[in-house]
Amino acid sequence: MLDFDKAGGLIPAVAQDADTGEVLMLAWMNREAFEETVRTGRAVYFSRSRNKLWRKGEESGHFQEVRGIFIDCDADTVLLKVKQIGGAACHEGYKSCFFRQLEGDELKVIAERIFDPTYLHRASASTALLVATMGSFSRTSSIGFAQLPSFACRRGNS
Amino acid sequence: MLDFDKAGGLIPAVAQDADTGEVLMLAWMNREAFEETVRTGRAVYFSRSRNKLWRKGEESGHFQEVRGIFIDCDADTVLLKVKQIGGAACHEGYKSCFFRQLEGDELKVIAERIFDPTYLHRASASTALLVATMGSFSRTSSIGFAQLPSFACRRGNS
Repeated sequence: MLDFDKAGGLIPAVAQDADTGEVLMLAWMNREAFEETVRTGRAVYFSRSRNKLWRKGEESGHFQEVRGIFIDCDADTVLLKVKQIGGAACHEGYKSCFFRQLEGDELKVIAERIFDPTYLHRASASTALLVATMGSFSRTSSIGFAQLPSFACRRGNS
Repeated sequence: MLDFDKAGGLIPAVAQDADTGEVLMLAWMNREAFEETVRTGRAVYFSRSRNKLWRKGEESGHFQEVRGIFIDCDADTVLLKVKQIGGAACHEGYKSCFFRQLEGDELKVIAERIFDPTYLHRASASTALLVATMGSFSRTSSIGFAQLPSFACRRGNS
């Protein structure tokens, strides 16, 4: 069904917000990640830097629920339409990883920061999980650093 | 600005319809392709199979006009928001390369075919260019095999 051989066992996977169409991130999948994604209905990628499966949300609690899986014409790229639990945000604090636009010779931030990325980075993994879980009950619609993160991307996993 | 070293000189580039948000295709860029894209305002990719620059539309006349260039948090993926001249279609005859959805164990075509992909494949390159140019003047909104193609993707270039 998919051609994992073309790029050494990994294929790119694009995650798109199922409701808004916003492109949230691009990550990588090996066969195991793809099969687990299909089986569980939650996005699972392969972290090139950590060289292991990356179950999105396994630390933060903010999973990507998969609403649709699409395969391109060459069978070497996956498009996931997802619902990002927690509101979709990059580890840098933005909803999408593509929060910078090229304007002239400069990259300009074109999105509002939803949370302070240093907040979770300072916390331990166990604390982070607790905070994220609490966040799912206390989330508000206001945009500010008090709102808790959901990782659409995470440095070191791409 | 971009980290081309992470994946051997190539980074993935996602093309998204600037108006509808539909993800059209994923292709690859080397530094030269990226710089030419920025300079010309037309999408230029790098064909892994042909091992050379792939100026989209150079054969069909159906370019991708770039409306916005976005860089992800890790600076190793590009998102292009584009206007697909000719109406956006995969070489298989669909608007987007992601025209198949996984349902159970099967891939099902979920989009309507806009043109007959064998039509242009049978034509010579010069005829194709002529046909595509004519198409830009005679295009209608009806969906049928008579409508002329614009390649959002093209087998052999990914």
